[in-house]
Amino acid sequence: MSTQRYGAGIWHFATYVDRYATDGYGDPRTILDAIELAGQVGDISVVDLNYPFFGGDFSNEQVGDALAKQGLGVIGITPEIYTRTFAKGSFTNPDPGVRRLAHELVTEAARVVRHFGADYVKLWPGQDGWDYPFQVDHGALWKLSLDGVGQLAEENPDLKFVIEYKPREPRVHMSFDSVARTLLGIERIGLPNVGILLDFGHALFGGESPADSAQLAIDYGRLFGMDVNDNLRSWDDDMVAGTVHPIELFEFFVTLRRNGWEGVWQLDQFPFREDSVVAARSAIDFLKRVERGLDRLDLSALAAAQDRQDAMAALALAQRALFGGE
Amino acid sequence: MSTQRYGAGIWHFATYVDRYATDGYGDPRTILDAIELAGQVGDISVVDLNYPFFGGDFSNEQVGDALAKQGLGVIGITPEIYTRTFAKGSFTNPDPGVRRLAHELVTEAARVVRHFGADYVKLWPGQDGWDYPFQVDHGALWKLSLDGVGQLAEENPDLKFVIEYKPREPRVHMSFDSVARTLLGIERIGLPNVGILLDFGHALFGGESPADSAQLAIDYGRLFGMDVNDNLRSWDDDMVAGTVHPIELFEFFVTLRRNGWEGVWQLDQFPFREDSVVAARSAIDFLKRVERGLDRLDLSALAAAQDRQDAMAALALAQRALFGGE
Amino acid sequence: MSTQRYGAGIWHFATYVDRYATDGYGDPRTILDAIELAGQVGDISVVDLNYPFFGGDFSNEQVGDALAKQGLGVIGITPEIYTRTFAKGSFTNPDPGVRRLAHELVTEAARVVRHFGADYVKLWPGQDGWDYPFQVDHGALWKLSLDGVGQLAEENPDLKFVIEYKPREPRVHMSFDSVARTLLGIERIGLPNVGILLDFGHALFGGESPADSAQLAIDYGRLFGMDVNDNLRSWDDDMVAGTVHPIELFEFFVTLRRNGWEGVWQLDQFPFREDSVVAARSAIDFLKRVERGLDRLDLSALAAAQDRQDAMAALALAQRALFGGE
Amino acid sequence: MSTQRYGAGIWHFATYVDRYATDGYGDPRTILDAIELAGQVGDISVVDLNYPFFGGDFSNEQVGDALAKQGLGVIGITPEIYTRTFAKGSFTNPDPGVRRLAHELVTEAARVVRHFGADYVKLWPGQDGWDYPFQVDHGALWKLSLDGVGQLAEENPDLKFVIEYKPREPRVHMSFDSVARTLLGIERIGLPNVGILLDFGHALFGGESPADSAQLAIDYGRLFGMDVNDNLRSWDDDMVAGTVHPIELFEFFVTLRRNGWEGVWQLDQFPFREDSVVAARSAIDFLKRVERGLDRLDLSALAAAQDRQDAMAALALAQRALFGGE
Repeated sequence: MSTQRYGAGIWHFATYVDRYATDGYGDPRTILDAIELAGQVGDISVVDLNYPFFGGDFSNEQVGDALAKQGLGVIGITPEIYTRTFAKGSFTNPDPGVRRLAHELVTEAARVVRHFGADYVKLWPGQDGWDYPFQVDHGALWKLSLDGVGQLAEENPDLKFVIEYKPREPRVHMSFDSVARTLLGIERIGLPNVGILLDFGHALFGGESPADSAQLAIDYGRLFGMDVNDNLRSWDDDMVAGTVHPIELFEFFVTLRRNGWEGVWQLDQFPFREDSVVAARSAIDFLKRVERGLDRLDLSALAAAQDRQDAMAALALAQRALFGGE
Repeated sequence: MSTQRYGAGIWHFATYVDRYATDGYGDPRTILDAIELAGQVGDISVVDLNYPFFGGDFSNEQVGDALAKQGLGVIGITPEIYTRTFAKGSFTNPDPGVRRLAHELVTEAARVVRHFGADYVKLWPGQDGWDYPFQVDHGALWKLSLDGVGQLAEENPDLKFVIEYKPREPRVHMSFDSVARTLLGIERIGLPNVGILLDFGHALFGGESPADSAQLAIDYGRLFGMDVNDNLRSWDDDMVAGTVHPIELFEFFVTLRRNGWEGVWQLDQFPFREDSVVAARSAIDFLKRVERGLDRLDLSALAAAQDRQDAMAALALAQRALFGGE
Repeated sequence: MSTQRYGAGIWHFATYVDRYATDGYGDPRTILDAIELAGQVGDISVVDLNYPFFGGDFSNEQVGDALAKQGLGVIGITPEIYTRTFAKGSFTNPDPGVRRLAHELVTEAARVVRHFGADYVKLWPGQDGWDYPFQVDHGALWKLSLDGVGQLAEENPDLKFVIEYKPREPRVHMSFDSVARTLLGIERIGLPNVGILLDFGHALFGGESPADSAQLAIDYGRLFGMDVNDNLRSWDDDMVAGTVHPIELFEFFVTLRRNGWEGVWQLDQFPFREDSVVAARSAIDFLKRVERGLDRLDLSALAAAQDRQDAMAALALAQRALFGGE
Repeated sequence: MSTQRYGAGIWHFATYVDRYATDGYGDPRTILDAIELAGQVGDISVVDLNYPFFGGDFSNEQVGDALAKQGLGVIGITPEIYTRTFAKGSFTNPDPGVRRLAHELVTEAARVVRHFGADYVKLWPGQDGWDYPFQVDHGALWKLSLDGVGQLAEENPDLKFVIEYKPREPRVHMSFDSVARTLLGIERIGLPNVGILLDFGHALFGGESPADSAQLAIDYGRLFGMDVNDNLRSWDDDMVAGTVHPIELFEFFVTLRRNGWEGVWQLDQFPFREDSVVAARSAIDFLKRVERGLDRLDLSALAAAQDRQDAMAALALAQRALFGGE
């Protein structure tokens, strides 16, 4: 029986707009609606909440009641440092006043983390970076990125801050663009409470092998969280996990298992045109196959094959474990 | 002195939302506001209008008055067959009722084309295609794409219909994804009033050489319109023309000149974080450099170099013509 | 029991050089060595042979004897119109003398096809295209591509010619770059004996869905052959089939099955650092899983899901069929 | 008058093979032939030499004489740790015996550096990494990469070692894949004599902004060398500098100028089908335009625009400086 805990970003159960379907891919939902849908999935035990709470002026208590009704806990809070106010950047905004607003919003989010006893404040500064050649002084921009995060981590030593890197979108180039760049920044900040939230799809999109990214973050003691989805490697499609890259997804989880990493398996999917409960269940169905595959995988035979860097042998073991003997 | 006519999609002067900045990159604007901004650019003589007109319930007359005030004509009408109603497709929607709605909306747009004496109805079926492996019967989907366009072209033989292809977005894979696929479809439809609106950036994004795409469409007698912008080749960034790929942009225009193609040079840019008037002027500044470059370029020397496929000689001629002798 | 016939490009069993390992990834092998290795795989019944035969001055008879000894037939002959002589192009070479040499080499290959009773001459003009902006007159280049193929097809009406398209490599941009462009060219040529050899990996690399590419080629009556491998979508890695994209590979075969396409399943892999017999067996192991998956797949339930464009339902059916109930 | 020193990798003047044109893109050349061609360019003062010297069994003295005759100095030595012996890796080879051979070859190269008074040993471990999911234990592989470089740097404290990172090729994924990963590794090694050789095209290929990569390496005190070329961002095409991305190339040099970085401007181009002397001159012609652009650029106005992150203003300054007033 599965003992794995599953989670999801609550936005998985929202509806979306984009630059074309400006009237949205469905009726707007409040965070309370989304929580109810998350509860319907049946396998999710924790959620990551956007802050401010979307769809209305809800108190922590209202949100807490909705969560309790569904038996859901809170793993993280994601302050929305990428909306209109922050269109030209949050930590790297050229306007110090806007940088201060970002700092204040994250500080509020930190209070919400404490309120819910969540694991971390999630930082995803999607508007921090640049669009055009020559637009920024790259040294100054990177310093702003690190100073922004560092100050928050220093002021809130009781909390963890996780940075979710991504190559791009909405910015044409994001400041925290890769696992290595983010680790380089975290080492420079030099505080114990800053880590990485590794998004499987962002790693793929960035040309990384997600298993390698996970190992690197673990080796630096900085893998504080993760989530999964899928894409075609050239964009952050946030498709359902396991639908395109089942083998690399399995390798990612094998790496976690091997390192004794035992956190929550979260979903970060955007089911624009799918029923969001069905999309979550589809992913979790595949992840349960992954769980069984992990139990079946002969880890010492795999280690021996990898020692020889014998791809054919290693893959045969992995495919058999994941897909079953039929 | 420049005699080239310039145009722009009117959305260049709107503000935008995306899946993160759901509250938009600026205050919403009506199409009337956008027309006023287009007029401020100073070099634009025609615009392509989204239909329905955004930001309010405006009549053709109101829009016509606003255009007249700025001295602007209408080159095309773009029916919005990619909003919520059409989230799962317009011509390829699995629901025949929605396909009918798409047909009706384009038919209305055709009336607006007639009203303004515009050149064409522009079809950009951005939601037509698929997201996942196994999602669609590809033969059936492609047939729906062609039937949808074919029926409209047949019912409106007095008008031109232009298809603007793009590899993807918002669909993970768009049905009309490339110049060759679109020409293949147009040949299958077999009507004289269906052509291509070639977007420079879409061609780049699709791994095409835009100059080659233009030549191919011209050779089939199907290059009915075009617009320009720029990107990093891996996404439809809709950046300002000339900021990343000046040389390929010049090659594109050389190809048009050489074939005697004398239509409007349009902008299709999305200045999310820039002043839209400034962004349009920046592009046109570069395009005027292109105009001068065309006049300076030694076409027969270029033809001789290309005859030998001598890249170094051809590029030297092009760079000198475009960048000037300093 | 499997009744599917398997094949391979004989180069699968060669060794390779590239621009860095100029001394090769292993000792050179003759085509006779490669045939012997192909025989060792055990499931391969036909091969595609490079022409001229590599590694020595072998006669058709010598090659025939080697094949007979392994119980192998010949499915196609691939004239090497991409070696030094043709470094600047075969059909599109700026030098008419070199174009004539290409024509002669393919004509010789046609004789070899007849000798072995093979199915087709395979044309892979990997050096035809361009590297730089401004290098070529695109209209003239495309005409040379079509004229070159057309003349051969006309002169050899008893034989089939298959074009294997690819986006690029070794040319920075290949003339026959996509399924749609190639079909457009074939329709222009207008002869019944020119078709497509669809390489699964080339379609992926080109941003196509290989299942869609197959359906399109079939709908034009032009799918004359195919081969499989895998890659990371951004290059023609020629990795072992099924190791990265098992689901899209399955979708590709479902499309063939549904259309009653019953040709040989060929391998086009380049096992640079792997044992080539082991690499072939690894692929065929996966393809046999595909065969069983095809038998298990509920095609009418899939058709119903695709009719609704219901990705989640369609993928659930596909995953269950391919991966087994465990 | 230009005082900038120019250099080139000597392989710029070799001929090449690849997996298709196995008989090469031209007659083989010895390193002595290549040196002579480098001399013909007229603007090159230093070269980077492959070791062992290609095309024959040449002594340091013979090579030194050939260089002297052309007035060329040596900037670096590149040990060929990517040929057949190292096909499965140099520092990360699964066989400790091969790792030892790599160490010995680099040690020899270090002696050649001393002989010629060159600036550095260049490490480009192009075969170090992996091809397939599950092939390697990523933690172990990365450790081998760092240990291999670290040991060499420790044993040769009088010399500089530069790592040239690249996302991939010939390996499907290279161990030193990006500027940030390489800096992370260098910091872990912790020795003063290990730095980065930044290849403009590798940065572009990796989705980096080369200007940002340069700034980051400089901020860590690790930019020990650089070279330029161009590509289409999706592969290491090694095309002539300035032919595709003139603006980003200029931004790269502006960054160097602004930081007072005053090393040699090197070419790393592979003119497969071009005359190599002409290709070098074409690049240097453009680089001289860059030099003049640097002198013309209003650095304080640029700084002010970048302070506001005003892309339009910054680009206008850059374009005017680079392209000239016409």
